[in-house]
Amino acid sequence: MTTQEGIKIVTIGGGSSYTPELVEGFINRYDELPVRELWLVDIEAGREKLEIVGNMAKRMVKKAGVPMEIHLTLNRSMALQNADFVTTQMRVGLLDARVKDERIPLQHGLIGQETNGAGGLLKGLRTIPVLLEIAEEMQELCPDAWLINFTNPAGMVTEALLRYSKHDKVIGVCNVPFNMHMTISKLLHADMKRVHINFAGLNHMLYGTNVYLDGEEVTGRVLELLGNPDSQMTMKNIAPLPWNPRFLKALGVVPCPYHRYFYKTKEILEEELEAFKDGQTRAEIVKELEDSLFALYKDETLDIKPPQLEKRGGAYYSDAACNVISSIYNDKKDIQVLNVKNNGSITGIDDDSAVEVSCVVTKQGPVPLTIGELPVQVQGLVQQIKSFERVGAEAAVTGSYDKALLALTINPLVSSDDLAEVVLQELLEAHKEYLPSFFQKSTI
Amino acid sequence: MTTQEGIKIVTIGGGSSYTPELVEGFINRYDELPVRELWLVDIEAGREKLEIVGNMAKRMVKKAGVPMEIHLTLNRSMALQNADFVTTQMRVGLLDARVKDERIPLQHGLIGQETNGAGGLLKGLRTIPVLLEIAEEMQELCPDAWLINFTNPAGMVTEALLRYSKHDKVIGVCNVPFNMHMTISKLLHADMKRVHINFAGLNHMLYGTNVYLDGEEVTGRVLELLGNPDSQMTMKNIAPLPWNPRFLKALGVVPCPYHRYFYKTKEILEEELEAFKDGQTRAEIVKELEDSLFALYKDETLDIKPPQLEKRGGAYYSDAACNVISSIYNDKKDIQVLNVKNNGSITGIDDDSAVEVSCVVTKQGPVPLTIGELPVQVQGLVQQIKSFERVGAEAAVTGSYDKALLALTINPLVSSDDLAEVVLQELLEAHKEYLPSFFQKSTI
Amino acid sequence: MTTQEGIKIVTIGGGSSYTPELVEGFINRYDELPVRELWLVDIEAGREKLEIVGNMAKRMVKKAGVPMEIHLTLNRSMALQNADFVTTQMRVGLLDARVKDERIPLQHGLIGQETNGAGGLLKGLRTIPVLLEIAEEMQELCPDAWLINFTNPAGMVTEALLRYSKHDKVIGVCNVPFNMHMTISKLLHADMKRVHINFAGLNHMLYGTNVYLDGEEVTGRVLELLGNPDSQMTMKNIAPLPWNPRFLKALGVVPCPYHRYFYKTKEILEEELEAFKDGQTRAEIVKELEDSLFALYKDETLDIKPPQLEKRGGAYYSDAACNVISSIYNDKKDIQVLNVKNNGSITGIDDDSAVEVSCVVTKQGPVPLTIGELPVQVQGLVQQIKSFERVGAEAAVTGSYDKALLALTINPLVSSDDLAEVVLQELLEAHKEYLPSFFQKSTI
Amino acid sequence: MTTQEGIKIVTIGGGSSYTPELVEGFINRYDELPVRELWLVDIEAGREKLEIVGNMAKRMVKKAGVPMEIHLTLNRSMALQNADFVTTQMRVGLLDARVKDERIPLQHGLIGQETNGAGGLLKGLRTIPVLLEIAEEMQELCPDAWLINFTNPAGMVTEALLRYSKHDKVIGVCNVPFNMHMTISKLLHADMKRVHINFAGLNHMLYGTNVYLDGEEVTGRVLELLGNPDSQMTMKNIAPLPWNPRFLKALGVVPCPYHRYFYKTKEILEEELEAFKDGQTRAEIVKELEDSLFALYKDETLDIKPPQLEKRGGAYYSDAACNVISSIYNDKKDIQVLNVKNNGSITGIDDDSAVEVSCVVTKQGPVPLTIGELPVQVQGLVQQIKSFERVGAEAAVTGSYDKALLALTINPLVSSDDLAEVVLQELLEAHKEYLPSFFQKSTI
Repeated sequence: MTTQEGIKIVTIGGGSSYTPELVEGFINRYDELPVRELWLVDIEAGREKLEIVGNMAKRMVKKAGVPMEIHLTLNRSMALQNADFVTTQMRVGLLDARVKDERIPLQHGLIGQETNGAGGLLKGLRTIPVLLEIAEEMQELCPDAWLINFTNPAGMVTEALLRYSKHDKVIGVCNVPFNMHMTISKLLHADMKRVHINFAGLNHMLYGTNVYLDGEEVTGRVLELLGNPDSQMTMKNIAPLPWNPRFLKALGVVPCPYHRYFYKTKEILEEELEAFKDGQTRAEIVKELEDSLFALYKDETLDIKPPQLEKRGGAYYSDAACNVISSIYNDKKDIQVLNVKNNGSITGIDDDSAVEVSCVVTKQGPVPLTIGELPVQVQGLVQQIKSFERVGAEAAVTGSYDKALLALTINPLVSSDDLAEVVLQELLEAHKEYLPSFFQKSTI
Repeated sequence: MTTQEGIKIVTIGGGSSYTPELVEGFINRYDELPVRELWLVDIEAGREKLEIVGNMAKRMVKKAGVPMEIHLTLNRSMALQNADFVTTQMRVGLLDARVKDERIPLQHGLIGQETNGAGGLLKGLRTIPVLLEIAEEMQELCPDAWLINFTNPAGMVTEALLRYSKHDKVIGVCNVPFNMHMTISKLLHADMKRVHINFAGLNHMLYGTNVYLDGEEVTGRVLELLGNPDSQMTMKNIAPLPWNPRFLKALGVVPCPYHRYFYKTKEILEEELEAFKDGQTRAEIVKELEDSLFALYKDETLDIKPPQLEKRGGAYYSDAACNVISSIYNDKKDIQVLNVKNNGSITGIDDDSAVEVSCVVTKQGPVPLTIGELPVQVQGLVQQIKSFERVGAEAAVTGSYDKALLALTINPLVSSDDLAEVVLQELLEAHKEYLPSFFQKSTI
Repeated sequence: MTTQEGIKIVTIGGGSSYTPELVEGFINRYDELPVRELWLVDIEAGREKLEIVGNMAKRMVKKAGVPMEIHLTLNRSMALQNADFVTTQMRVGLLDARVKDERIPLQHGLIGQETNGAGGLLKGLRTIPVLLEIAEEMQELCPDAWLINFTNPAGMVTEALLRYSKHDKVIGVCNVPFNMHMTISKLLHADMKRVHINFAGLNHMLYGTNVYLDGEEVTGRVLELLGNPDSQMTMKNIAPLPWNPRFLKALGVVPCPYHRYFYKTKEILEEELEAFKDGQTRAEIVKELEDSLFALYKDETLDIKPPQLEKRGGAYYSDAACNVISSIYNDKKDIQVLNVKNNGSITGIDDDSAVEVSCVVTKQGPVPLTIGELPVQVQGLVQQIKSFERVGAEAAVTGSYDKALLALTINPLVSSDDLAEVVLQELLEAHKEYLPSFFQKSTI
Repeated sequence: MTTQEGIKIVTIGGGSSYTPELVEGFINRYDELPVRELWLVDIEAGREKLEIVGNMAKRMVKKAGVPMEIHLTLNRSMALQNADFVTTQMRVGLLDARVKDERIPLQHGLIGQETNGAGGLLKGLRTIPVLLEIAEEMQELCPDAWLINFTNPAGMVTEALLRYSKHDKVIGVCNVPFNMHMTISKLLHADMKRVHINFAGLNHMLYGTNVYLDGEEVTGRVLELLGNPDSQMTMKNIAPLPWNPRFLKALGVVPCPYHRYFYKTKEILEEELEAFKDGQTRAEIVKELEDSLFALYKDETLDIKPPQLEKRGGAYYSDAACNVISSIYNDKKDIQVLNVKNNGSITGIDDDSAVEVSCVVTKQGPVPLTIGELPVQVQGLVQQIKSFERVGAEAAVTGSYDKALLALTINPLVSSDDLAEVVLQELLEAHKEYLPSFFQKSTI
């Protein structure tokens, strides 16, 4: 790292509406994390958004008075040269693709969501080849740089990067652990610092296995509080369907908001079908939100992150990214919940697979804490999603229709091999443009 | 073993309509397996059936001219004294309980079946305490005897016996592997001896990982043949819903008939709901079959197993039991597919858990062959069912309502925690009489 | 923990010559670790030393001006009442026993040392029953207190405590990791803070698997420096025999000073036999050192730790203990190298075994970092010592002569079953008084 | 396999004095194993022996009246064309090399033996590259053929073939398991068929974990019998040094004769040093034996295997090879003890490593039985030898001096890094001619 002269950060998908969060994160941490250059990279289709967001970023930096250079470019290779950290937050196919990921499965009575089930698979198929290409470029242009990915489905994407890329400095980040920590602290009426949670599982399949308040275990109390229908922990993009309190007690560990997809499949599906009818799937809502956000960003007097951004759902995503970058840079050795190579941390999951666990973040990167065996009652579901992620990643890399069909059929949200085939064919066709490896040969 | 004087076998649930199969099995093997005494044991409620079947058994033995004594008794302890092998084939609550296991879940839109999902759990909760009691008695009265269980759900039952009983000479048997071997041989137009299949998984979740014909691998060919809708492999109790051929090819290993519950959930459910409406669930059909079988058995001129028995669905169950008994007795060291302690055979499954794998059967009992890692695409589902079986077994042993709710909610055939609670409460109430440990304390 | 009123610490073996180190450690950390009461406990045979050291401790506290109460007692149970932390540093049989541990094996041509080989086994056999008794008392009198053990052989002792005691709040500490860190930093001419080492292995069988300077890996450079005969890393009690530089390079990881016993067995033995002839084994030297230390401690004007203590060999032992206590108390989440339950941290070692690895120390105790597979070239030796520790711990707990003979014969420093028996019988006889479980029944 | 026309077998090292055993084995099994062609292959240096042994083989076949063609050739590639089975029994460097393997370590006070310690390593370094070359040729010329290796050190050689060759149809055979089975049966005064032994470990580090007589466990009795100094189980090449009976009882499993190297190192070394002084190391004795054997073979009237061959020490080696070939050919599914890929059979040993365990031998090759965890008291030693074998195999493949030094130093029979270097340099120099990969670059 050429850190003596300050840090060079490259953000791929820099035209994202989230970018002001990231910029704010770097500004707030400037004292400990002196970013010299922030390169916002996007593709031709994102040129306009990149300019809007980029100019906003420049205003933010100016207002803050920090000597951080903002570079805007469509030339990814030039940006990657000698980077110290690369963050990725792209959406291949933009929000229109997300609309399809959500609506097509629902048309066939299946849950439609961009990180789970059929939609999650398709997002993975589109995204993984692009990220592998970036990792390959990094291996050449900035081999010592860390790739910090927050593109979903982060579990499958990290799995693919760890297994199929030579560039092994890869970390997947997500805002779910932070949200859980914050929500649980609120439920306990305690400052977050007083609350310690052991986290283990996969991305969007994360469990808080033990919760401590001032060093005393309070997991049972937290589960009781979460069982109260008035105090639901959730995310902007997940309906706050209440947990069955008896089940929560029996589960014995704290589920993450996304676990509703698996333990409340029926209710989630009903709720989604309702939104589907009303043209109010999450993608459609987000499209409107984004439009209004970009309208705001265009305002040349705006030089701070607008409060409206929080509704967007990715709150704390950039905090997660900034924190891991700062801890590596400063050798902080603090504990963060990250997607990394398992290497034996969770017993029974392949050493080379991605897991989301509490890690110590050192200058050499994150080291997972030893988790040991997951509680028996959650082992099975975690393994099933891991099978899905591994087969899905293989499908993305090989462009194999059969592997994609296999991944979809073994997904617990998909209830039939024949139905899987129908939905898959429709989704592949709809995303044809972004799936070159599936279509350059006659796979169907 | 007091084998010098011939073998003593005890069959608990001796009044079952299957018993003539077992008796025929012992008669046919008399030369290699000289059964001196066969004790048919039943409970008061089964006294009449025991007498009908027992007399039929006596006629069969007489007709065959073998010196096998048939004893009928309601006194289990007396029967167990110095037994060499004990087989168990009981149905706690009789067929009426099975009707409830099937119909109650269907009333709530969930699959109703006696070995999977909600029905399977309830059958486990009723059966496991009785089998643990038998194992405890064996430990005292015939500590060297093997317990050969073919009571369903055999996976969960064997799990419970291996984990919670001191009597560790326990084997679970099932007719699925034999049926798969036979069907695949037929598809290949080959004698069964020419076909060799590596089997691995759990009970009713068994995969043929490799199929060989005359030593040459033909797994791909078999999957192609099975993908033909005209050549479906199934069991008497499972609708022969055709597999999606593309999925089958992608799966790469041969699923068992019961896998339809997981890979064709939607279709199975639709088919069951149809039967439900018509009062033609499997239990209801079996009830009629049993009535007509017992009518036949009453005929004092009948002294061979009637061909009608085959429709009953358990064909080859008793072959499986007779074969394992004979191989232990004769130290045959042949390969059989049995439910035994994993002990490292399948990587990633707890050493102390039950698995269904190819074993070498020696005088010291079955030794599983080394399987290693299951293919990634099936690992997840197998682990999920294993989690269900382990939590279900714990619920049965502890009488814990919470554990039962947990087991049900994590079952992939149950789509909601709230729905699980509704169905569980109804099922527990319906089977109250046979669930003393759940009701002696105020658990609900 | 009744921490609002300050911390209660109990030091068993309080009459040790090391105690001033510990007292100094608590004084220096008083701001972050307010010790209210320090109870020094010893046995009748140690009464005089306890008084000498205890009075010295009182003078040290007074001089420092911290409100720490020093209590001296022979009544262990009274001391343990409501303790927060218990440290153990006893020597069952005192230094005379160590003389035997060292000299008897050497009489038979075997290495004599108090933590390895025959001497280590015998020290374990004497010590483990006493520590298990303490743990049992703690379970009753201070169930939330941590037992911080620095009695050798710390590996076998921690193994025994983790496996055979219900009190699972147990940590083994050692000064080897600190010494390695310090020595390597000196070799690199760098402040310790700039040097980061990943540590993994067992007690006195610890490897530095990677060394980083300012975040850059320098393991190869360190091995080259250590191969220089003029820059040997060692401990006070281990002769600084130079490593073969080519071997060190090939080993690829940094061995600890005690590894000389295994990779330089021949040279160590020759060196010990020399000392043996001269009556200058380590125990004999230490006896003299202790005598002169206690002579110093008697001086009522001495109120600081005398510099001579450093020669004693246990430098930084008490630092290790104070640091872990402070990190638990303050929830520091810093990284320390401790003996804890493996729980999957090192692949291939039993989950329930003790390992010495880098841990994050939280308010809930230490959590090992995930190590994964040890490099193949060191796996075997680590496993062999682990087998020795496990069988040795079992011998200590059961008082089984056969298990003791087994442990000794499988130790790589013992070259013959017959010789093992001769040496074992002589050692058992010599330590008869301190091995009640071996002699109350007729085991030989 | 072109088995319709009979089997083609290729024996590399066909000029070995053992070949008549192999030929006798094929003659005796002709009915079940119709060998059409047996190709004896040797190198130029072995031409004369090949002719002598080959002619003897032809006379044996003629006398037996079986239609087996014997082909003698120095053209290995021609011989391998379309082979069904290839057996390898070569000695790179002939017996002169063995003399060096034995005498050079002894000159430095280390055990000298051709499968253990320094001698074993050097034999591995010479042999492995040749076997990898053969495997590569097979992959091209007879990809479906099994390579049955009985060249020592069979453990390290099989490890190397499994890890570094694409040709994965590899089996290592050894006569130790048969000898143990036979000796134990004799001790029990029982026919071998009545005795069943579970075998597990590594080559020349094999344990009988349980012994059964007529189905009843008699392990304890066998250990007692083996503890009797008059009834020692050993091999022709290992001095029958008596076991310490108390140690044997404590060990709890039956060691193999070679375990004396590790549990009686001192006595073995003393005995070898005696033989060394007298010029009577095993290699020297074998040279004389071989000379007299070849003198016999030259006798054109000799047409059966002469009884003198048994003294040579490899008795039953060829039985082991013939048995595994016949079981594969006939799909016998019997149990044999073979060196195969672990794949999870023994817990804690790498999946890809070679282990020696009881296997079921099917037409698809051997499948190891599930062993699970080795008893704790033997785990460590087994792991240590496995580390030695893995590092040694890597040294052989890479020609790395450093890896060779590492392998030698971590071997438990070598007591010092410096001594290892001295002995290694002398051995490498002595075997220079057969170690091209070590000398073509400047490694020392």
